[in-house]
Amino acid sequence: MQVYSPPLRDMRFVLHELHGSDVLRTLEGLEEVTPDLIDAVLDEAGKLVTEVLAPLNQSADQEGCTYENGVVRTPKGFKEAYKTFIEGGWNGIACDPQYGGQGLPASVNKLVEEMLCSGNLAFGICPGLTHGAYEALKAYASDDLKNRFLPKMVEGVWSGAMCLTEPQCGTDLGLVRTRAVPQADGSYKITGNKIFISAGEQDLTENIIHLVLARLPDAPSGIKGISLFLVPKFLPKDDGALGPRNGVLCTGIEHKMGIHGSSTCQMSFEEATGWLVGEPNRGMRAMFAMMNSERLSVGTQGLGLGEAAYQAAVAYARERLQGRALTGAKHPDKPADPIIVHPDVRRMLMTMRAYNEGCRALGGWVARALDLMEHASDPQTRRQAEDFTSLMTPIVKALFTDLGFASASMGMQVYGGHGYIRDHGMEQYVRDARIAMIYEGTNGVQALDLVGRKLPAHMGRYLRSFFHPVLAYIDAKMDDENLSPLIAPLGKAFGALQLATAHIAEKGLRDPDEAGAAATEYLRLFGLVALGYMWVRMADVAYEKRAGAGDDAAFYEAKIATARFYMDKLLPEVAALWGAIKAGKAATMGLDETLF
Amino acid sequence: MQVYSPPLRDMRFVLHELHGSDVLRTLEGLEEVTPDLIDAVLDEAGKLVTEVLAPLNQSADQEGCTYENGVVRTPKGFKEAYKTFIEGGWNGIACDPQYGGQGLPASVNKLVEEMLCSGNLAFGICPGLTHGAYEALKAYASDDLKNRFLPKMVEGVWSGAMCLTEPQCGTDLGLVRTRAVPQADGSYKITGNKIFISAGEQDLTENIIHLVLARLPDAPSGIKGISLFLVPKFLPKDDGALGPRNGVLCTGIEHKMGIHGSSTCQMSFEEATGWLVGEPNRGMRAMFAMMNSERLSVGTQGLGLGEAAYQAAVAYARERLQGRALTGAKHPDKPADPIIVHPDVRRMLMTMRAYNEGCRALGGWVARALDLMEHASDPQTRRQAEDFTSLMTPIVKALFTDLGFASASMGMQVYGGHGYIRDHGMEQYVRDARIAMIYEGTNGVQALDLVGRKLPAHMGRYLRSFFHPVLAYIDAKMDDENLSPLIAPLGKAFGALQLATAHIAEKGLRDPDEAGAAATEYLRLFGLVALGYMWVRMADVAYEKRAGAGDDAAFYEAKIATARFYMDKLLPEVAALWGAIKAGKAATMGLDETLF
Repeated sequence: MQVYSPPLRDMRFVLHELHGSDVLRTLEGLEEVTPDLIDAVLDEAGKLVTEVLAPLNQSADQEGCTYENGVVRTPKGFKEAYKTFIEGGWNGIACDPQYGGQGLPASVNKLVEEMLCSGNLAFGICPGLTHGAYEALKAYASDDLKNRFLPKMVEGVWSGAMCLTEPQCGTDLGLVRTRAVPQADGSYKITGNKIFISAGEQDLTENIIHLVLARLPDAPSGIKGISLFLVPKFLPKDDGALGPRNGVLCTGIEHKMGIHGSSTCQMSFEEATGWLVGEPNRGMRAMFAMMNSERLSVGTQGLGLGEAAYQAAVAYARERLQGRALTGAKHPDKPADPIIVHPDVRRMLMTMRAYNEGCRALGGWVARALDLMEHASDPQTRRQAEDFTSLMTPIVKALFTDLGFASASMGMQVYGGHGYIRDHGMEQYVRDARIAMIYEGTNGVQALDLVGRKLPAHMGRYLRSFFHPVLAYIDAKMDDENLSPLIAPLGKAFGALQLATAHIAEKGLRDPDEAGAAATEYLRLFGLVALGYMWVRMADVAYEKRAGAGDDAAFYEAKIATARFYMDKLLPEVAALWGAIKAGKAATMGLDETLF
Repeated sequence: MQVYSPPLRDMRFVLHELHGSDVLRTLEGLEEVTPDLIDAVLDEAGKLVTEVLAPLNQSADQEGCTYENGVVRTPKGFKEAYKTFIEGGWNGIACDPQYGGQGLPASVNKLVEEMLCSGNLAFGICPGLTHGAYEALKAYASDDLKNRFLPKMVEGVWSGAMCLTEPQCGTDLGLVRTRAVPQADGSYKITGNKIFISAGEQDLTENIIHLVLARLPDAPSGIKGISLFLVPKFLPKDDGALGPRNGVLCTGIEHKMGIHGSSTCQMSFEEATGWLVGEPNRGMRAMFAMMNSERLSVGTQGLGLGEAAYQAAVAYARERLQGRALTGAKHPDKPADPIIVHPDVRRMLMTMRAYNEGCRALGGWVARALDLMEHASDPQTRRQAEDFTSLMTPIVKALFTDLGFASASMGMQVYGGHGYIRDHGMEQYVRDARIAMIYEGTNGVQALDLVGRKLPAHMGRYLRSFFHPVLAYIDAKMDDENLSPLIAPLGKAFGALQLATAHIAEKGLRDPDEAGAAATEYLRLFGLVALGYMWVRMADVAYEKRAGAGDDAAFYEAKIATARFYMDKLLPEVAALWGAIKAGKAATMGLDETLF
């Protein structure tokens, strides 16, 4: 049996104590988001996850989705759970009240998302995609489309799906072949085949709104000829009721390693009616509104699974009796000591803990920037926040999912053979976590986005949104008695990040393969430094608060101990990454293609 | 579809060119092992794997083993394949001719094993265990037991299984509860329950010989009260024919992440007749003869899957068209370039390649030592060889399986979404590879074996079997024009290994938790240095041979390019590991147990 309990204390720490939730209320539209309201939302979300969603996680994995004659059935219990989910208003908590949403900030929503991912990743994928589609439509669709589709999507009675991939194209969407032919009434007829469409067909919602990439007849070739279309499964009538079935058919689902509770569909569009979203041939722009939102959410999936695996591993490490502490029996009354006494088990638990809490803190910072982007009145603040989220999106996506997979695998290792069999649910975490490194742009593509687009953008302006606060912080705290042992390794690692950045900027300008060959290591280096910064700041808060904290002092002690572990044991990886980066591309590109 | 072609050229390189197969023929009992014979064996093994075993790999994964009323059925085709396997004499190729084996050296057998693991890991597990049981019986059983059981096991009509684990004990075998009661005729009645018994029941062989850990009535508690028993499924008659069924029953099989073609059995022993192997209460000693052999074989599993994943990833990277080279289109005639042009794809392929070939070379060195241990006439040579295999066994087991899992996962990443679905078989490699990090002693246990037993043994004598040749080599080649760019990083990494060794020896003496907290990083550091040494030596051979190599020059060029990649891009990890080791245990053990 999987065990999971929402880490509410740590979530409140990140939200209120580390990033300061008071700021939220100063923003337009968020005046009523009080700490009490936030805590109540988190509590309720935690209940939903533990009482409704998590109990279905293992059975859904074992049962999977089934396909028959165009119909996809989700695992037992999903329909009822989804009904509870949307009746509780959870589908629209972060959506605009104008369309029926609750208008809660991303800072809160990301934590709710994390709980969903921990409790039942496969279940969360469909509402996650609905939210992504909502973002794209809200940003780019006509008012008419928005008014016709968004309220139902926000409510959750209609879902969203992203139809990008085709058999011949995944990363390279310039190869899309699906065609869109304009009709006299302003609509389009869409024809083509899509694959790997998550929740492209399911039995949870009465309608499914597909966002489909396709080509207009006169479109230029490649990525500049792609347009985005809204294509519903059922065509709504003018009064909003469901009309006739559209030419959209699921022709099969994939058998895959994990996320069995989420259908991965082959979709066929045959002269399906759709409407253009945004401008002709500018589909990628609109699609990126959805993808950026999804990329951050996929990062959260990594964190959610890492947290679930950590909790399970701790529970098992306390309970499993095996061997004696190296320094002598700790529980001589028992046949053996619990394995948590062993340093190598500690190493794994501390690593998972340091990754998870570090990612939660960094995710919270990015979520705060999303809120500022959306709600700040000052254009300068909005721009800086946008710079920061642009910069951090590939890092959150790739780093969190790499670490989430590593944590899931480590959690399984704590269980030994019992982790490899199905019963405890650990191997499911590993299988589920693996997809997050791939979808919404593989982690390699994220790294290229970072070095190829985000670093050079506006002469490096995005970078400043991270470099400046970190530099200022290091400068301010360098002589702090408590923090200096943490600041020293952070400063060193940050120095390596600066060197690596300069190296890539300089070499990459002359030869883009130099940037490409360093990209993955650079993203990881950047991410580890960002987590290091978060850890020092968390320790900073913890040192400040522990004295008067009473029973809560232990929480702050744990923060300080974990910060030290991160700095001592995990941040040194930066040295390896910088070593690999500065070696340049020669070794990576040196072997002739024919000799592999 | 999985693709796999035995890497015969590289295997011959390791065997003949790197480690020199001529030495083998100078050893007693191996006089007839000519290079031609070796090559013929490898060729035939390659055919067996590609024609008979590999075609069953994916179907066996999907079908799995089934259990009904004590009977286990292996997947379709396994019975016929096993018949072909034993009829070809493959089961006994490395066994003593005295018992019907072919007496081939480990240097050859390990390469055959690698091919089996690449082609069909689950299939290979049963014969692998038979071989482990053979080793334990050969070393510790009475002549009577050996004569009654070994010939059938060597032939493969009877298989072997290792019955160690019980629900309450895995790593800590001191907790074994299974009892053995002596009988008047010198046999024992064995009673108890075992779990996680690979191939504990199957339909491939007419009998199954279980090696069972159990306690005698008067046994001391803990690990010093464990004895080893041979317990056959069917009791053989005096003429060797099968007699009555013994009190051995499979009560269920596990559902697990991978290796579905291999049954993982719950076994119940009810007054089953068995015979003592070795001395009373010294069962662990005999079991270790089996386990050490198995640990090296599990390392080979990691390598085998890493190789299979690499080959598949290369094939896909050549064929999948997606995007353009960053430096401009390489194939403007095609809709896109094959993804092998992308530096980040190259990074993954080169990493897998460098790991696989490095592990094959290191595995070849260890196999050579096994042959010297067994066949050398000079006791000093035998002892040195034994020191070396003792030292390297935990490294081969843990490092090869960690890297194998990483390679399988990387291979899947090259496929993107197509790797996550079942069709290409990439996700199977990831699932299958994951167990190798756990069974036969988790990789954390291997690390403890290294720092706790192997480092301190005989005042560090084992270490010298590795340190001396590496030091001498670095010394000899330091000024070699070709090699010096590779020797420099090797020397630096070796220096870190020396420092880390001294650090652990010194700190661990005072506080065993210090050694425990550094163990995993130390094993990896050691392993990476060992691969680095192999890479320089391979480059050395390649530089020497490429000039006159004709068509084969490309092979040597590839070796040199891969050596450079390993040194530039992978060996720098040593800096991170040494950084983490020297931080000591404080951070790992600092968090109070209650605060996790």
